[in-house]
Amino acid sequence: MSSERLGVAVVGAGYWGPNLVRNFSASPEWDLVAACDLDIDRARSVVGERSGVDVTADLADVLARDDVDAIAIATPARTHRHIATEALRAGKHVLVEKPLADSVGSGREMVDLARSQGLVLMADHTYCYTPAVQRIAELVAEGALGEILFIDSVRINLGLVQPDVDVFWDLAPHDLSILDRILPGGLRPLGVAAQGADPVGAGKACVGYLTLPFENGSMAHVHVNWLSPTKIRQMVIGGSERTLVWDDLNPQQRLSVFDRGVDLVQQTVDSADRRTASISYRLGDTWAPALPEREALGEMVAELARSIRGQSAPQTDGHAGLRVLSVLEAAATSLRARGALVDVMSTDQPELEIVR
Amino acid sequence: MSSERLGVAVVGAGYWGPNLVRNFSASPEWDLVAACDLDIDRARSVVGERSGVDVTADLADVLARDDVDAIAIATPARTHRHIATEALRAGKHVLVEKPLADSVGSGREMVDLARSQGLVLMADHTYCYTPAVQRIAELVAEGALGEILFIDSVRINLGLVQPDVDVFWDLAPHDLSILDRILPGGLRPLGVAAQGADPVGAGKACVGYLTLPFENGSMAHVHVNWLSPTKIRQMVIGGSERTLVWDDLNPQQRLSVFDRGVDLVQQTVDSADRRTASISYRLGDTWAPALPEREALGEMVAELARSIRGQSAPQTDGHAGLRVLSVLEAAATSLRARGALVDVMSTDQPELEIVR
Amino acid sequence: MSSERLGVAVVGAGYWGPNLVRNFSASPEWDLVAACDLDIDRARSVVGERSGVDVTADLADVLARDDVDAIAIATPARTHRHIATEALRAGKHVLVEKPLADSVGSGREMVDLARSQGLVLMADHTYCYTPAVQRIAELVAEGALGEILFIDSVRINLGLVQPDVDVFWDLAPHDLSILDRILPGGLRPLGVAAQGADPVGAGKACVGYLTLPFENGSMAHVHVNWLSPTKIRQMVIGGSERTLVWDDLNPQQRLSVFDRGVDLVQQTVDSADRRTASISYRLGDTWAPALPEREALGEMVAELARSIRGQSAPQTDGHAGLRVLSVLEAAATSLRARGALVDVMSTDQPELEIVR
Amino acid sequence: MSSERLGVAVVGAGYWGPNLVRNFSASPEWDLVAACDLDIDRARSVVGERSGVDVTADLADVLARDDVDAIAIATPARTHRHIATEALRAGKHVLVEKPLADSVGSGREMVDLARSQGLVLMADHTYCYTPAVQRIAELVAEGALGEILFIDSVRINLGLVQPDVDVFWDLAPHDLSILDRILPGGLRPLGVAAQGADPVGAGKACVGYLTLPFENGSMAHVHVNWLSPTKIRQMVIGGSERTLVWDDLNPQQRLSVFDRGVDLVQQTVDSADRRTASISYRLGDTWAPALPEREALGEMVAELARSIRGQSAPQTDGHAGLRVLSVLEAAATSLRARGALVDVMSTDQPELEIVR
Repeated sequence: MSSERLGVAVVGAGYWGPNLVRNFSASPEWDLVAACDLDIDRARSVVGERSGVDVTADLADVLARDDVDAIAIATPARTHRHIATEALRAGKHVLVEKPLADSVGSGREMVDLARSQGLVLMADHTYCYTPAVQRIAELVAEGALGEILFIDSVRINLGLVQPDVDVFWDLAPHDLSILDRILPGGLRPLGVAAQGADPVGAGKACVGYLTLPFENGSMAHVHVNWLSPTKIRQMVIGGSERTLVWDDLNPQQRLSVFDRGVDLVQQTVDSADRRTASISYRLGDTWAPALPEREALGEMVAELARSIRGQSAPQTDGHAGLRVLSVLEAAATSLRARGALVDVMSTDQPELEIVR
Repeated sequence: MSSERLGVAVVGAGYWGPNLVRNFSASPEWDLVAACDLDIDRARSVVGERSGVDVTADLADVLARDDVDAIAIATPARTHRHIATEALRAGKHVLVEKPLADSVGSGREMVDLARSQGLVLMADHTYCYTPAVQRIAELVAEGALGEILFIDSVRINLGLVQPDVDVFWDLAPHDLSILDRILPGGLRPLGVAAQGADPVGAGKACVGYLTLPFENGSMAHVHVNWLSPTKIRQMVIGGSERTLVWDDLNPQQRLSVFDRGVDLVQQTVDSADRRTASISYRLGDTWAPALPEREALGEMVAELARSIRGQSAPQTDGHAGLRVLSVLEAAATSLRARGALVDVMSTDQPELEIVR
Repeated sequence: MSSERLGVAVVGAGYWGPNLVRNFSASPEWDLVAACDLDIDRARSVVGERSGVDVTADLADVLARDDVDAIAIATPARTHRHIATEALRAGKHVLVEKPLADSVGSGREMVDLARSQGLVLMADHTYCYTPAVQRIAELVAEGALGEILFIDSVRINLGLVQPDVDVFWDLAPHDLSILDRILPGGLRPLGVAAQGADPVGAGKACVGYLTLPFENGSMAHVHVNWLSPTKIRQMVIGGSERTLVWDDLNPQQRLSVFDRGVDLVQQTVDSADRRTASISYRLGDTWAPALPEREALGEMVAELARSIRGQSAPQTDGHAGLRVLSVLEAAATSLRARGALVDVMSTDQPELEIVR
Repeated sequence: MSSERLGVAVVGAGYWGPNLVRNFSASPEWDLVAACDLDIDRARSVVGERSGVDVTADLADVLARDDVDAIAIATPARTHRHIATEALRAGKHVLVEKPLADSVGSGREMVDLARSQGLVLMADHTYCYTPAVQRIAELVAEGALGEILFIDSVRINLGLVQPDVDVFWDLAPHDLSILDRILPGGLRPLGVAAQGADPVGAGKACVGYLTLPFENGSMAHVHVNWLSPTKIRQMVIGGSERTLVWDDLNPQQRLSVFDRGVDLVQQTVDSADRRTASISYRLGDTWAPALPEREALGEMVAELARSIRGQSAPQTDGHAGLRVLSVLEAAATSLRARGALVDVMSTDQPELEIVR
């Protein structure tokens, strides 16, 4: 092992763990030293028969190792708080699969502990590290789209109905974390309205819609669905200057920037005191920026290394994770209130004193 | 002119009128005898320079003609009630461009008058006469999809911002009339929640979402949008047996029926009194029924003729028009109430006594 | 009728005639005065029951009329020479549906006669008047693609097996006329190789491929097919600077200009006397120019009027028609020679003396 | 290591080797014991830092090992014969990346040696093990398409211009091996005509077309292209009963079976002694069979194991490799003869006596 590499252990060898194992293994920044899962055979299978990576069923084993600098958690969301706090207390940096936790309260506890320990806590909002989202964020930041007017995100597929969470908690963290990355200032809606349906009797919403109004009159809408036979992953970001369409399933043209739109030219008030808007239309060209082919998780593990070394702050830190959780919690409240618009609490409040 | 043909006059030579003119002209059932528009040059231009079809700017002219059996109205919605009631009082059958009227009240007045006069009142819900919708309705009726679980309809485009109506009243009548045609028993949601945004300052919603819960736990959702640079017209109809996707912009495969889905196998109650659903997945083949190439309006004018001759009842009669209006009105109320779920009044109530 | 309009008669009311009728009727430059077809009922049906346009089964009727300035021919190709020469001798300008004639000899006779009579002879190479081809021609002319390296054109569909011509004569005139419009200097290949198959036993090629090498080492290839269940109309034009893809069935993005390609950086000769090319790759952005929505035939009838008035020369004149015919004839020869490369005779030879 | 596993060594750690390494590692049938590459660091990097798989730069090392039952060769084609014959002489079974060799002669030598040694020689025609090709082969075999009428295969992309081979030898082995798998009796065309262009001056064909006529009047055509900015991998297989379209880049509907086509109803001879075919059209439904998600290489390494154990014969054996090579060689001859149709020698001739 190179003396300059950081050591990492992956906890959880289920659906997502193998991707983390693969990317940490391939990274020049990292040395994957262990994989941990209650099912040790599964852990063994993920690292490979002839691998030199250690496997264990006991979290304490990996937390006790000096050659482990960071823990990557890929276990069910309800276990994140426990594992993360154990790891932080053992002095390990922590990466957590989305969502950060299963409640704002748990997430806040993790954020506060990481801060008090001086350790990195990073949310694995993988999509934020795709070339597409990185490019969208640049385009928005440099004003190429103008002011954002509306965002419509669709993420539907015949997906695995999760045993413990509904479709909002399973899929919407992707959309919300992307919005958090793209929107200037992060994801801070005025409120959220959630509509859900459970037409197969799964005991939880399998089809869901989120509406998020923003202060400037713009609106975001998210459609998540486990029951659709067709797979769609598309986001339209309407701007005052240009509109961007991201079709993630079209590798030949993931991003299209349309110089098309509706402009309010002037507004007049007529004798009947009605406002009349004069509208003009732009029907310009379309531009599709070239994107590098790069695996998002590779970018993310590189950023985790840079963050631990103090070279940069993670784009998807614990606070980003909290903003996503606060919308998910408010959505759950709205769902119980038949879709009423529910306030989203700011997660910027002064942090609680941690006494333990 | 064949003595068996019915005479028709088209009123309104704007956006939609020319399509009616073309289809009535091409129909063996109809004799187009006149076109009427306040702008007589526009009327002339629509029928053609060398045409023998009469043109006039005066509605009374066409209502007075004996060779006019029916009036087809393609004027702004706010004028429908006035023109239709004039025509019905003059003993003419009436076809009205969608939406039927600009309010449930006006629509009901038209329906009641037609009934008392014994005349046909038909809503030009054009999409209902497309081969695609006809086939979908058959498939639903014969149970090919099983019970309907969810419907998601998207109708977005860079469209003309209308001077007098918002995006709901402009575009959603299409989706709602299709739902009315497809759903067994017609469109009878428990309520409607509407979210809209006017990010360009047009003075009305330009982006809109409707959510319609139904009694059996299923839900329909409609996305209408004037600001999207890409055009999408897609409807997913999820059923307990199969799921249908209608992509109206893919002429090579408009309808796809997926034998894919999520099934609830059994439901158990564990010791902690939690219900656990056992889920199974179907990943079967896809089937795309061949559809004839046929213009919807041609079907519609043929059905209007059959209805007048008493051979059949119109699929899109005044009552269908009223059901659509009742959802649009409730949606407007929801919009003012920040998206709260608003009851949709049944339009099946005993008809009011008409005293005139 | 405006005194400034030109009078036209359409000859042939079959598949293509109605499109000509519609476009001449809608044009401010033209007055459609007559339609001619051996089947007079068909002619009547095309102009419409109440139309004031005259119909006749006798070509002499329309040629004798003073109010007819031009004849538009939409009859089978084998009749073009006869009808066109009659019309030209009667002093009428002539527009001919593609292909110009059924042989180079017949076509040349028409071209020579038109020239000696001082009349316009125009080939209805409709695709050349689409916004897409017009834009491609501009892009090529201004050097946006650099030098053209290869062209691949696919035009396949479940099409009508023609009674009198094979798939090359039916469909390839489209591709060849487009090449003639786009290529600087027109369509002048070194030769043509044609491969065809008649697997259904129709007595003529139903699937066909053309290969056309050019002097600069570039090559065009055309695939025409009556037996394909999917419809594809796509042309790739590879250039040294950029490559253009025209997908005519994608109205939302018909043209895409890719700043992607393979560049020869340098060429070295090694000790073994082998040339080694050093290759580099460009992976730049894609650009999709906005195109107006405009019917090609409308442009074409306008250009015919301008040509008759001496305001411009037709882009698709008789010589363009001849260049297309010369490739079709050579292809037929190649087909009989099992696909051998056959020379394409120049049609620029001094015109024959016309003695009549 | 399980005593029942077979041992394998991968030779060549360039482009394709890592895929073999990954699939042998993941297979329950195989034990990957070594990776061999002249560049030992590359071999090390492919198996992974902490791996227990041995690495070496010396082929003799792996051939000398008792725990190596088979060698998988992923080196340039010109080296296949040498490495394969060394391995076969050492008593190892051999898998060879496509194409089997760089000439029919070399390939035949390998086939003959494997036979005389009683060892398995398998061509890694990977596409033949995809669920799509497996399903196509079944559909053809069971007669679902009827008699095959034409095949059109397109495989274009902005690809790496290979230093040592042209676009035919690089890409067409895919198409040809698929044809060999699908066609009843394997790939046995009457001849081949090849057209190629080198418009970038790479010193070899970068754009190429193959035409392959068959005895029954049907024809296959292959388009391979390194210069296309868009990626297309599509095959149309026209049959007398149904036509299949395979779009490999559409994971949501890779296979579509169209019940559409042109039928010859009857053929009559008229008084002028011309044959007239009466044609009818089928415009039936489309059917898209569900395909499992499965990596082709995983299937292939499993079949290699079964073949070695004598449980089955490889679908893509050395003879399949030879049939592909014989077309590639004939195509090279045709290319030098300006595209003339060149006979394809049968590779079924009695095998040569091997004297060494």
